[in-house]
Parts: sequence; structure tokens; C-alpha cells
Amino acid sequence: MTETEVLSAIGETLDRDVDAVLATIIDVEGSAYRRPGAKMLIEGDDSAGSLTAGCLEDEVRGLAGDVLDAGQPRIETYDLTGDDDIWGLGMGCNGIITVLLEPLDESYRPVVERVTNGGDCGVVTVTDGDRPLGERGFYDPETEFSDNLPGWLCEELREPTATLLERGKTDTVGVETDDGTVEVFVEGIEAPSNLVVVGSGPDVNPVVELAKQVDFQVTVVTFRGALSSGENFPAADAVRATSPTDIGDNIEFDDDTYVIVMTHNFIDDRLAVEDLIDTPVQYIGLMGPQERFEEMLEDFADESVEITEDDTSRIYTPIGLDLGGDSPHQIAYSIVAEALAIANNRSPQHLTDREGPIHDRIEVPLAE
Amino acid sequence: MTETEVLSAIGETLDRDVDAVLATIIDVEGSAYRRPGAKMLIEGDDSAGSLTAGCLEDEVRGLAGDVLDAGQPRIETYDLTGDDDIWGLGMGCNGIITVLLEPLDESYRPVVERVTNGGDCGVVTVTDGDRPLGERGFYDPETEFSDNLPGWLCEELREPTATLLERGKTDTVGVETDDGTVEVFVEGIEAPSNLVVVGSGPDVNPVVELAKQVDFQVTVVTFRGALSSGENFPAADAVRATSPTDIGDNIEFDDDTYVIVMTHNFIDDRLAVEDLIDTPVQYIGLMGPQERFEEMLEDFADESVEITEDDTSRIYTPIGLDLGGDSPHQIAYSIVAEALAIANNRSPQHLTDREGPIHDRIEVPLAE
Repeated sequence: MTETEVLSAIGETLDRDVDAVLATIIDVEGSAYRRPGAKMLIEGDDSAGSLTAGCLEDEVRGLAGDVLDAGQPRIETYDLTGDDDIWGLGMGCNGIITVLLEPLDESYRPVVERVTNGGDCGVVTVTDGDRPLGERGFYDPETEFSDNLPGWLCEELREPTATLLERGKTDTVGVETDDGTVEVFVEGIEAPSNLVVVGSGPDVNPVVELAKQVDFQVTVVTFRGALSSGENFPAADAVRATSPTDIGDNIEFDDDTYVIVMTHNFIDDRLAVEDLIDTPVQYIGLMGPQERFEEMLEDFADESVEITEDDTSRIYTPIGLDLGGDSPHQIAYSIVAEALAIANNRSPQHLTDREGPIHDRIEVPLAE
Repeated sequence: MTETEVLSAIGETLDRDVDAVLATIIDVEGSAYRRPGAKMLIEGDDSAGSLTAGCLEDEVRGLAGDVLDAGQPRIETYDLTGDDDIWGLGMGCNGIITVLLEPLDESYRPVVERVTNGGDCGVVTVTDGDRPLGERGFYDPETEFSDNLPGWLCEELREPTATLLERGKTDTVGVETDDGTVEVFVEGIEAPSNLVVVGSGPDVNPVVELAKQVDFQVTVVTFRGALSSGENFPAADAVRATSPTDIGDNIEFDDDTYVIVMTHNFIDDRLAVEDLIDTPVQYIGLMGPQERFEEMLEDFADESVEITEDDTSRIYTPIGLDLGGDSPHQIAYSIVAEALAIANNRSPQHLTDREGPIHDRIEVPLAE
């Protein structure tokens, strides 16, 4: 279940107005399977989403009833380090995981609505100090904080929240008050990245299906109405029929949009690429061999279409990571792997060869 | 549809004893979406498998009726280079593709039976010269060639066939005779690589599902009978319940078997790794952070379990390619991407950065 699907499940549960508990990892010391911000929604014996690789879920589910009875948020910490006999051997990690459990309430609805509509937002939740545990604020980059929080707190949280949101990260921020420190868990929640697949061949669906599994928002673009019906791409979030020269007019290409050009028609591909280099798109994956792209560059030169080095650095052709295999699904797999790495700003390598931690750490500026 | 699924479809069609045509790419000049050996089975208006990214399928399907009427194999060549107005603009490639169409017959059954039972085999098919077009031989590494072929031809084909089979490649071999040259399309058809997933947590299924899509033969290994029923891993080809110390006894680990260790139990993982380093397995992906593996190495040292550099070079931890993302499906995606790259002997990188052709070319020794 993807993060977006968990948020949708939260929205549906709110709509049904039933009792449910939201569990969120708010801190990890050492390493763990999931990062802070990972969520599990618990309704009765059912749950959606996960906090770990199955080691804490039962334990946390077991607490949901108490949380609902108490009608209060609570925080549980699980020491999963090797020194702890109860949990230490159970996990593929050495971490100490802190989980916030809270009765699900309307304070989460704006988050669901914002993200499922393709927007990013911040969520701030008091986890310690001289404010009510679980007190929540919603941060919209345009309208700033929801007005249920005191102004001085919003003032302190504005910069760290904006910074974390920019990077889609989370952190706990300590806000000094006259009576001590208020600890606030700040989440930057990003809408899923957009993947636009330009093409209508039978090789498109494997790409769409794999991309959905790693939580891309997928739009298929077909030309001249070819196969433009959604039925042909059942897994896609949207299907647009347009013309190669009008791509830019019909779809919003921002810097979190990644594009795969696979019409298998040389002229259509060329026109699409010509459109796309005028967008902020950082990934233009082009199906076909290097020679084909060189022909394309010659055509651009003939028609004095200017292609800068920055443009060509955004064009990946042959498309995909070098994983070998040449069946349609293996090709699709290598394409989506490449889009995922670029969307996450990673350079493909074995994690065992990566220097430093698997998960980027970032410095969060605190307001003075 | 994976290569293995296409072979299974061929088997089912043979069982039903109905008319069908098998189309096989036997040559590609330049580059193309699929490689020689790619197959499409055509029965009436239905087909299974693909030769291109949808550009030639209709054309080839249209010829199936003629092939059945003639009751004879035929060869069609499609020039998809940019200079050819009919096809040139249609393809994401610059290649010239040659396709063998033949009425499906029993000569393919041993191939289906061999490969679907996990064995590799060679297929030789006469494509030109002073022998019947489509004349076919079956090559089993143990029993050598089927006896329908003349001995002198088998003699000539033995070494190239064995070489191509070793690498799972195809090539056309020219055999000199008194009357000229007989051209033979030689396919080395490998059974799918084996992926063994050691674990039983909820994070196992996403790995199994993705691995099946890229045509691994997937076995899930659980310990102490935990979740050992196949129902828990519906996509897996097999589920084995064993004990961490007996893995090696219960499953055959050859050098085309790749193993993911994700029990999330430190001791189980350690015992599994201890078993696995005594096998020829070239990929032991271990879930968890580097520190956890270092603890494991200390335990090995304490128990004077010898771990050579070759052993550690086969252990990949943290597991997976660095694609970013930390939802269970994204983690699973990076794991299967790593297993796929290792199984195909590729080092992960953007194809656009790869030197030389996407598809390895190999030299095939000819018999004197």
C-alpha cells in the first residue's frame, strides 16, 4: 500500500465517521525499516499502512482500543536495538522507534484533501512540553498555518516547516517558551511525483503499472486520439489525448514531473522532446538507441531548434537503468527504476556501496 | 507477459492441438526493442508475446493465415531504418528485423517441457541453405542433440550451441557443406533465474510480486512453519518451511540462484547467511543496515565461522539499489532491481552512460 493510498484510507475513514486510531512514527534513533512520518491507520482489527516490517504492527494495533477509550493521544517508544532481548532480535534494524498514537479526527482532513489533490503541505503536531499532546496545525505553503494554533507558535514553526516541506522530510523541532520547551513533530508531506508517459503502444501499460506501485501519479499522453480512452490504460490516473506540439499546453510540467517519451514514432518523439525542453522537467527519458537521438539532434540543428547542454543533460537515452533483460516488463522495470532514482535525486548504485546513511539527513534552520 | 509465460502458452496450445503460428525474431541489424529469440504465438486473432513495441505485431499476425495455409515456414524481413518511409518512422529503433514464421508443431514441445521444468536447452533451426527451411533440432546439455538431425550437422553445431546456451544468447551459425552454406539460427534458452526470498513478513509479498513480473522463479523460505502456506505468498512459485540451519539441505542453490535474506530476525538471518556462504550463490542480499552486518561478522568471528573476502563480496547489505524512497513497495522495487542487475551481470548505471551497445555481443566459436 503506497503512502498516497494510506492517506486516501484516512480520508475514507473520516468520511465514514467511525472510530479509528492513527499511528505515526515520530522518531527513529539508529536505523529502521521505515522513516519518521510512516503511518498506520487502525480501525478495529483492520489496519492500513505499516510502521515496520511487521514486527510492531500487532503490538501497536493492540493499543488502539486503549487510545480510543482514553480519547487521548499517547506516545510509545520501542527499543529495537540488539541489547534489548524483547525486540532486539526481531528487527532488521538497530533502531529505537517512537510512535504517536491518536484518535483519528478532522484535524487530518485538510492533509488528505491537499495531498490527494496533488498539493504539498506541512503538518505540525505537539509531542511534548507545555502544550496539549497531539495539538495539530496544518500548513499550506500559500495560506500558511491553520488558525487554531497560537500566532507565536506559528511564527517559530514557519521556517522549519517550510524547509522540511521543500524536501519532503520530517523532524522534531524544539520551540523555547517562558515555561520551557515545546516539542513539535513537523512533517513535510509531498504529493506523489508526477510521471507522464508519452505513448500508446503495448509497452506503455507495464510502465504505468510498475510506476503506480512505487507511488507515481501517472498520466498517459496519447496523440491524435490514439487509444486515448482510460480503458486502455486502466492503471493510469489520467489519460490525455493531445498533439505532439501541444503537450506543454495540455499538461502542467513542473520540476517534480518526470517524462517518458515512447511513442515509437520518430517525428512524434522529436516534437514531444522539443516541447519538453521548454519545461522545467528534469527527466526526459527517450526510448530508442543513442543513434536515434543523434538523428534527432541533427533535425533540431537543421530546424535551428536550440538545444543547450542543460537540455541534453535532462534527456536520458537509451532510457532506463542498466539492469539487463529485454522482455517488455524488464525494460519497463529499468525505466521506472530510472525515473524513481531521478525523482529521489539518487545516482543508481548498490546501497552497499553508498557512502553515508541510506536516508539523507538535513539540517533544519530554527527561527531565532 | 514474460518469456516463461510465452513458452507456457506454446505448451498449452500444443496440448489443445490447434492450428497456431510461432513467430521468432531470428536477426536484428542495428537496434530494436526486442532481441533475436523474441517470440510471438499467434492463434487466430489472438497472440501471446511480442516481437516489437507494437509496430510489427499486426503485420505479422496478418501473415499467420498464409503460413498455416501453406503449411510451410517462411521468413520476413522488415526494414525499420530511418530511410524507409513505411516503417522507418514507426519504431523506436533503427533496425532491420528478420522474423521466422512457422506452423507450431511438436518440435517445440521438448523446449517447453525442459524450460518450464527449470532446465536450459538449445534450439537450432535451419533458416537458409541446402536443408529444409525450419528444420529443427533440440539440444539438451546432457543428452546433446535430438536424433532427427544428421550427425555431421550436430557435430558442426555442438560447440556454438553449447557456447550460446551458456550465455543464454542466440546467433546465426553458418555451416559449410559440399553444396554451400547451411544457415542455422541457434538459440540458447535459459530457464528463468531463481530468486529465493528468506522471510515471512508483510514485506515479502511486494518483493515476490515484483520479482515475478521480471520473470524470476521465486521460492519463499519461511522458518518454523511460519506462514508456510502458499496462500500467504500467492505470487510465489513455491514456499518451503525449513529451519535456518537447513536451508542448504532443502533447496538447490546454484550459481543462477539469487537470495534475499529478510527474516528481520538477527539470529535467523545470521544462520541463513552462514548456510548460504557455503553455496555457489553469487547474490546474498541482506536486509538491514551496515552496522547490523558488522555485528553479524563479529558473531561469526566469535564462533570462528570463516568468512572470506569472496564471501563478503557476495553479501549485499544494505540490500537494494539506491533508488530512494522508503515505502515497502519502493524498498521491494530497489531490492528486485538489484537482484535483476546481478542476475544479468550488469553494474547499475543509467543506460545513457553505458559504454558500448545495450545488449552484449559475444563471439561464437565455430567448429573447424
